[in-house]
Amino acid sequence: MSLSKNQLKLITSLQQKKYRTRHNLFIVEGTKVVGEFLNSNYKLNSLFCVNDSEYLNINCKTIISEIDLKKISNLKNPNNVLALFEMPAKDQFVEEGLIVVLDEINDPGNLGTIIRLCDWFGVSQLICSTNTVDCFNNKVVQSSMGSLIRTSIKYTSITNYLQTTKLPKFVADMNGENVYKTTLPKNAVLVMGNEANGISKEVFELINNTISIPRFGTIQQTESLNVATATAILLSEFRRSL
Amino acid sequence: MSLSKNQLKLITSLQQKKYRTRHNLFIVEGTKVVGEFLNSNYKLNSLFCVNDSEYLNINCKTIISEIDLKKISNLKNPNNVLALFEMPAKDQFVEEGLIVVLDEINDPGNLGTIIRLCDWFGVSQLICSTNTVDCFNNKVVQSSMGSLIRTSIKYTSITNYLQTTKLPKFVADMNGENVYKTTLPKNAVLVMGNEANGISKEVFELINNTISIPRFGTIQQTESLNVATATAILLSEFRRSL
Repeated sequence: MSLSKNQLKLITSLQQKKYRTRHNLFIVEGTKVVGEFLNSNYKLNSLFCVNDSEYLNINCKTIISEIDLKKISNLKNPNNVLALFEMPAKDQFVEEGLIVVLDEINDPGNLGTIIRLCDWFGVSQLICSTNTVDCFNNKVVQSSMGSLIRTSIKYTSITNYLQTTKLPKFVADMNGENVYKTTLPKNAVLVMGNEANGISKEVFELINNTISIPRFGTIQQTESLNVATATAILLSEFRRSL
Repeated sequence: MSLSKNQLKLITSLQQKKYRTRHNLFIVEGTKVVGEFLNSNYKLNSLFCVNDSEYLNINCKTIISEIDLKKISNLKNPNNVLALFEMPAKDQFVEEGLIVVLDEINDPGNLGTIIRLCDWFGVSQLICSTNTVDCFNNKVVQSSMGSLIRTSIKYTSITNYLQTTKLPKFVADMNGENVYKTTLPKNAVLVMGNEANGISKEVFELINNTISIPRFGTIQQTESLNVATATAILLSEFRRSL
């Protein structure tokens, strides 16, 4: 078998959110990450591999050439397999635990890293503003390394959510309270903002607690921390006293 | 004026370490980051800009077209200016404070993020294994956002360094002591390893203290944390008790 023109067209189209929504499918690549999705509740639609030794009991597979894999892959170094999975049904949200809210995260690598961090720190719910990059974007899927499977992600109006939630709300802000000296609750909402502009004004006004990561560089004003590294430090702070 | 063929050739060649070393020059791009380097001790060699309103008192400048800027830029969205700076003289290393040692970090984005973190947390000395990506690689320069100016970076044999330093040495390891329950010294060496393989065996054997970042995800084994986010959390832990 080889790749048909229609398959090539479908797979290429899935690089765009519009077509992912239309077909209810997204792309997963590479032996390791595809393996994680195959072992999850996600439903496989089709699988394209160069070597099928790991996929012998999969019916909906097509064996393709390295050249065809290169055509459909979004990776610099394609790794044997590309699979299409169905987008999952939307999870019910529960108002408990630690919830991360993202206000317009644009960079797919940052969102992928934040999803990995949520997975590591047992944050099972992530709420994204509707203008945050799509979590089924292939770069997000690849950089989250399978952590997507274990994280419920909801795209919604975060101002509506923040207006209705009863959990205490925290946001990182330069002028906030030193996070090392703040007692953080177990159940809370942590809001992280856009890479260039931080939290939007209307979101900021809905949040009661501001916390800051102290800066130890002394020579001069330093750039702010990258949003993914700031999220890492703050999630660690929420968890370290448990 | 416009860009000469020789200038184009020189600038393009500086994407490779070999030519950076030969010419003792590296590339900095964009109004903000170039501005930070101009305000530092780094010595400007030449500057190419579309609009020179910010660079009126600079002599070694060439005004070029947007089209020429696109030819020499490594950015997706070139931002008015590209400058060549001289590589700095090598700093003297001092055996005090918190020192970060990197064992074969390959990804320029990760090194850039770690340099930003060092700057934030007042780590003024960074020691890289000779097989770590070059800190004057243009992606490292851009992702470190000017933090490079405030961080001494030395490429050397890290096994030699770890054998001779008298500071306590720490490494992140899954089986290490819970970092949240460890009393960390003010003066120490923190060693971080390669993205795929972690710390090499010969380096690991030279380190007396292993620490771990506890994992809170419960469902199943999670991927390890990305090296830059792990560095963020560990540097925060070293600093929080100061």
